[in-house]
Amino acid sequence: MANMQDVARLAQVSVSTVSYVLTGARPISAATREKVRAAMAELGYQPHAMARGLASRRSRILGLLLPIDERGLGATETAFVTGAATAASAAGYHLVLSPVDAGDLDGLRQLASQRMLDGVLLMEVQLDDPRVGVLRSAGVPVVLIGRTADTTGLSYVDIDFDRTVHDAVGYLADLGHRRIVYVNHSATAIAEGYGPALRSRDAFATATAGRRIEPVMIPAEDSPGGGRAALASAFDRAPDLTAVLAMNESAVFGILGGLAAHGRTVPDDVSVVSMVTSPQVAELATPALTTMTSPGTAVGRIAVEQLLRHLGAGSTDSAGSTGSTDSAEIHQQLLPCTLEVRGSTGPPPTLTPAPTGRRSAHP
Amino acid sequence: MANMQDVARLAQVSVSTVSYVLTGARPISAATREKVRAAMAELGYQPHAMARGLASRRSRILGLLLPIDERGLGATETAFVTGAATAASAAGYHLVLSPVDAGDLDGLRQLASQRMLDGVLLMEVQLDDPRVGVLRSAGVPVVLIGRTADTTGLSYVDIDFDRTVHDAVGYLADLGHRRIVYVNHSATAIAEGYGPALRSRDAFATATAGRRIEPVMIPAEDSPGGGRAALASAFDRAPDLTAVLAMNESAVFGILGGLAAHGRTVPDDVSVVSMVTSPQVAELATPALTTMTSPGTAVGRIAVEQLLRHLGAGSTDSAGSTGSTDSAEIHQQLLPCTLEVRGSTGPPPTLTPAPTGRRSAHP
Repeated sequence: MANMQDVARLAQVSVSTVSYVLTGARPISAATREKVRAAMAELGYQPHAMARGLASRRSRILGLLLPIDERGLGATETAFVTGAATAASAAGYHLVLSPVDAGDLDGLRQLASQRMLDGVLLMEVQLDDPRVGVLRSAGVPVVLIGRTADTTGLSYVDIDFDRTVHDAVGYLADLGHRRIVYVNHSATAIAEGYGPALRSRDAFATATAGRRIEPVMIPAEDSPGGGRAALASAFDRAPDLTAVLAMNESAVFGILGGLAAHGRTVPDDVSVVSMVTSPQVAELATPALTTMTSPGTAVGRIAVEQLLRHLGAGSTDSAGSTGSTDSAEIHQQLLPCTLEVRGSTGPPPTLTPAPTGRRSAHP
Repeated sequence: MANMQDVARLAQVSVSTVSYVLTGARPISAATREKVRAAMAELGYQPHAMARGLASRRSRILGLLLPIDERGLGATETAFVTGAATAASAAGYHLVLSPVDAGDLDGLRQLASQRMLDGVLLMEVQLDDPRVGVLRSAGVPVVLIGRTADTTGLSYVDIDFDRTVHDAVGYLADLGHRRIVYVNHSATAIAEGYGPALRSRDAFATATAGRRIEPVMIPAEDSPGGGRAALASAFDRAPDLTAVLAMNESAVFGILGGLAAHGRTVPDDVSVVSMVTSPQVAELATPALTTMTSPGTAVGRIAVEQLLRHLGAGSTDSAGSTGSTDSAEIHQQLLPCTLEVRGSTGPPPTLTPAPTGRRSAHP
């Protein structure tokens, strides 16, 4: 492989001059710069990424800020991450996975001050998220996967919870269901202002009101055990329930187990719709789950594309381009989940008095 | 925040001198270097990560090479990734997720030649993996998550498939099972030399031979549908099977659905053990799956620790340290999976002629 000495010899300049062209540490005349660049091209010289990063003031590294707890990542979040990694790679960028805790603002400040990241994707966004302010005051372009309450001047890509919940409730209501329980994320997530939990709660209230259905929302811990506990509460509050809508992907399988334990057949006795769920997860259940299917990798891909537009990317390496570092243009995009009907939903059972035991499906 | 001008003023040197100390672009006397460093420390100056990377010839960036296909990442692989990201972050390193296709050796060569990555973790390792040679000839330290056939001179962390399969077969045999079917990864994975598929196949042959059990191995596509198809083959080849061992996490749920469709109860008629599986996935099933539990995040963490030892990390930023870039020391570690008994296993049914219908468990 050619090195800096080879380039200097061919361009008939000193090694320091080659270094200055690479690092931008000293101004070099356009003519000399051209000579050096031509020599690099001829020799197939690969400039050191760090040096090129200094020269262009671009590292071509994007950060994905992702709090990781001991539960790890769900299938939906994993799809966001792999979508972002693939899109960054396709654009010649590198994606760093930064597991900075949501509350660790000092750690975030330090990360931003290293000026290693050209831009940042923020995941697990709270309605009021102090990380946004920290990144902005450090001058780091940000795109949210999720949304804060006030999105003025912020670029984001998020699930369209309003439409997703509205479509799911409409689908069940059209089948004839009138007692629909909504299993949300945990009470803690709701109290901490986790966007998906609050937006879906409000959307469920609106969608049921529009259908004159009494809303029953139950929070659930993110686990099958949480789902079983939520189902027990659901039977307390709505013994005549005929459908369960679940936002909490980890709880869905506990809900299925709980229904079996209560002697209820899916979908003859109770229909189940899993929201923001991947087909892969849907197929794990028997019968396979009807889902509002998550846009998955598209979320991560679109977020990266938004961030690259902020960076004025595509022209970062060509000499003379000045693409603004933080374009005034704001990109906000909501992606709906799409209804995919599988085996877990059907019409409600014909009304008979006893809430337990096996009942026949609609005639 | 202090900038280079502030540092230069306090150290009473020119801004270029500060820059040279940072980038190493020109030699600077030890005394001047010391003066500049003291000024940086006093002002709390954060050197630009790229400049520091040039100076130390360390980027503090590690790469995780991870082929991502449209199926995305399973729970086990995701745990490896998050374990690696968390360990890198705790050590002050950044982890780049590089979704380079396993076959894209040119892409890999280019990535390595940018000299941006201090070291690389390689996932989805094949028994004969040309990526190892590419990285080594580019001088990039490598740690494998997985193993090649010949591991001479290579550091790796991998699941101990021999022991895991041996323990699982032993557990089922001790319960009294004699007709045990092993559901492996796909025929394609086996043909392509995917390590876990081949090692577990051989371990199953050895473990069953030791117990005088006839080995029945069925490959399965990585999906619930693959699991259902494999179960159908299993009933063809071993109609009297009483236990299924599955390496293929995605297929397990199809096996469970298929058993229900065949009128077999778990565990009364058939016991199921899921290998290299997380408790989170185990709890999704009803009854919850008995597993050989994956070491999960520990795999990623140990791989990062091995890689940092190769880099002589811990002293990379202190002046005068010369930690060798590719230590001769090789770290090879196998992690066993631990048996966790849940509801999907029990003794085989008492022998009665008919293979279908409900049968009572052992007296």
